[in-house]
Amino acid sequence: MEVELKEMLNDLESLKRSLTDPSHSAPIDKLQLRVERLTSLAKTGPVRRSKVQDMSAEVVDSNPYSRLMALQRMGIVKNYERIREFSVAIVGVGGVGSVAAEMLTRCGIGRLLLYDYDKVELANMNRLFFRPEQSGMTKTDAAVQTLSDINPDVVLESYTLNITTVQGFETFTSSLKDKSFRPNKEGSGVDLVLSCVDNYEARMAVNQACNELNQTWMESGVSEDAVSGHIQLLIPGETACFACAPPLVVASGIDERTLKREGVCAASLPTTMGVVAGLLVQNTLKYLLNFGNVSPYLGYNSLKDFFPTMEMKPNPQCSNFACLERQKEYLLVKPARDAASKAKMEAEASSVTEAPLHLDNEWEISVVDDSEPDRKEAKSSDALPEGLVRELPSADDFQKPPAEAADSTVDDLEELRKQLDALNS
Amino acid sequence: MEVELKEMLNDLESLKRSLTDPSHSAPIDKLQLRVERLTSLAKTGPVRRSKVQDMSAEVVDSNPYSRLMALQRMGIVKNYERIREFSVAIVGVGGVGSVAAEMLTRCGIGRLLLYDYDKVELANMNRLFFRPEQSGMTKTDAAVQTLSDINPDVVLESYTLNITTVQGFETFTSSLKDKSFRPNKEGSGVDLVLSCVDNYEARMAVNQACNELNQTWMESGVSEDAVSGHIQLLIPGETACFACAPPLVVASGIDERTLKREGVCAASLPTTMGVVAGLLVQNTLKYLLNFGNVSPYLGYNSLKDFFPTMEMKPNPQCSNFACLERQKEYLLVKPARDAASKAKMEAEASSVTEAPLHLDNEWEISVVDDSEPDRKEAKSSDALPEGLVRELPSADDFQKPPAEAADSTVDDLEELRKQLDALNS
Repeated sequence: MEVELKEMLNDLESLKRSLTDPSHSAPIDKLQLRVERLTSLAKTGPVRRSKVQDMSAEVVDSNPYSRLMALQRMGIVKNYERIREFSVAIVGVGGVGSVAAEMLTRCGIGRLLLYDYDKVELANMNRLFFRPEQSGMTKTDAAVQTLSDINPDVVLESYTLNITTVQGFETFTSSLKDKSFRPNKEGSGVDLVLSCVDNYEARMAVNQACNELNQTWMESGVSEDAVSGHIQLLIPGETACFACAPPLVVASGIDERTLKREGVCAASLPTTMGVVAGLLVQNTLKYLLNFGNVSPYLGYNSLKDFFPTMEMKPNPQCSNFACLERQKEYLLVKPARDAASKAKMEAEASSVTEAPLHLDNEWEISVVDDSEPDRKEAKSSDALPEGLVRELPSADDFQKPPAEAADSTVDDLEELRKQLDALNS
Repeated sequence: MEVELKEMLNDLESLKRSLTDPSHSAPIDKLQLRVERLTSLAKTGPVRRSKVQDMSAEVVDSNPYSRLMALQRMGIVKNYERIREFSVAIVGVGGVGSVAAEMLTRCGIGRLLLYDYDKVELANMNRLFFRPEQSGMTKTDAAVQTLSDINPDVVLESYTLNITTVQGFETFTSSLKDKSFRPNKEGSGVDLVLSCVDNYEARMAVNQACNELNQTWMESGVSEDAVSGHIQLLIPGETACFACAPPLVVASGIDERTLKREGVCAASLPTTMGVVAGLLVQNTLKYLLNFGNVSPYLGYNSLKDFFPTMEMKPNPQCSNFACLERQKEYLLVKPARDAASKAKMEAEASSVTEAPLHLDNEWEISVVDDSEPDRKEAKSSDALPEGLVRELPSADDFQKPPAEAADSTVDDLEELRKQLDALNS
């Protein structure tokens, strides 16, 4: 618009010069004034926030990172600024994925990869993120528009494709392999894949890609009655993959397209999806920035405000070939990994003994660390991935008669099975 | 801008007519074309969604309520459209309050009252909702701008004031009393007050107003280290008020202004605040639309994904005079209320026996309702408000020696006390 207005000013100027009668110059002056006023109006459009070179902890109203960098001063995170090094892929930019993308963008994640093939509709307005005026845009385009306005520091890559098609799957896996953002990174080009899709096929596609690439990922889902959801951590070879124990995980996905075609649709709520996105990204931050305990599985039953946890070991008879390969590799490196982590723990323990913080301990006060006994257990012989906690009996215990397991454990499984039965009926 | 452009077209027309030399009409025609093009450019601004007369369950992409009305078909909510009758007041439009307001707006709440005195800053961009271009606007104005775009069906009222001042408190209480939205409503003019403030004084002001007006409210808070939060239901006379047991509740609030002045600030995360807002609004929906169990207290410890629950009875020695008045009233009506709820339950039970769904029960199969034993208990002699569940021992049990209470209960209280100690030190 500004270009058009400038050209108009030039046109008016040459018209004025071509007119010989001086009585005509007054209306042209008036027109020029009008155009100038319009130019300044057009310029006062939305002001974009500029890029920030380094994350600062300075407490000023203009610093978009002050409240995040404060996590270091509070002793929660050792080095918050590392978040700029990480790449996260979000598959599915719907009710959960879009909110997860916004949270990571506001946290200043280094790079976000977004995948979706759907368009924004007014029927999506009962969930957070998309705005009515974005109706008709692809979800990826609308998301990039909103996210780049919110935080221009984040590198955004969007892919408008269906990962369950042959072509889509190929583009998906090759985009995960691309290391141009951090060339010296080990493994694939992303640090974590978040699955925020709403159907079984798409979950199986994410599972296949991550098993092939040995890529850690997190799964999320919301039930079709809108009142429960879950998140799950999947480490190829180390935890159950999506094909190892599908019944417990499928329970929450139904293809929106199938439902729409039949003239019905799944219910959804911004609350349940917001909570699931929040739990998912919170665990993503814990995983990337190495604080707290990453949940292997966390459910959310909103009717009772009940949050079941559990853990699933890989299935040695899994139907997924890549999963079996990763299981073999994991068992091969397991003894070395256990020894290394044991040695590291002992070194840390002895270094603490060698250099006490307070040398003049005349009262012989000693600190007993009883806050995280689970984490220590996890690092010992029982082969739990780092950061995982055994809140419920391990997968092996589930095979014993129910009488031996804790009450709450049985409830969780029963409940999940009931949900599954309801879906399958 | 469109008005300016139209006037410019008129000016050009009269200039053309005043010019005698026909060689001058060509440049003016060109200018008129330019202005017309600019007019159509200006018109293609953001399209607003129009108001919707009735909530429809029709499954079409253009229906913003289809996924919410589906809650009825799924058997979760009996009458979703009732949401349009309800008024909710949100005090504090920050990291939790703004997201709570967006969720309720997208759910199609009837009327929202918003209270805040603060302005949007870039330092707020690490949480959901506000956009960088809104920096400098009051939080109430920015919220009304965004929310009215998202859902024009919601009646929005905003108050840019500090409820802890004398004038602010008076405006606050009289706005809660205003019944013009639903003149025949019992009690005050709002159905629920959500406290989403970040300091002790503001919580005490909400507590005072709600005790005086006998107004049920929900409290929410996030810790200054950004990794835990809570929500709590407060029913004057029936549950503990904010002054009955301040230590357990204050634990999470610190005045931002004080912190800023000292050159430090509390940490915050979009994840924790999104989860707390989601849990708060989910419980609001359960309370208003009468489904599931409303949590009396629900904590969120994000480092361990631990969600403590508890319940607090009112303190007969509470320092708040209005609370003591409400306690007296509650004890007076308690016997009648208990008798009525017992009679209702018995009537429901007998009506089920009198008219079985399947008359030809030749196998004598009977349904035992074991899904909600807690709810039945709650309605019996022990005087829990309707919809509340006893997940942990009641407040009385907390006064017994810790050895008698369940392990998890002790953990919760210990943890909250530790947080409090950390804040007070």
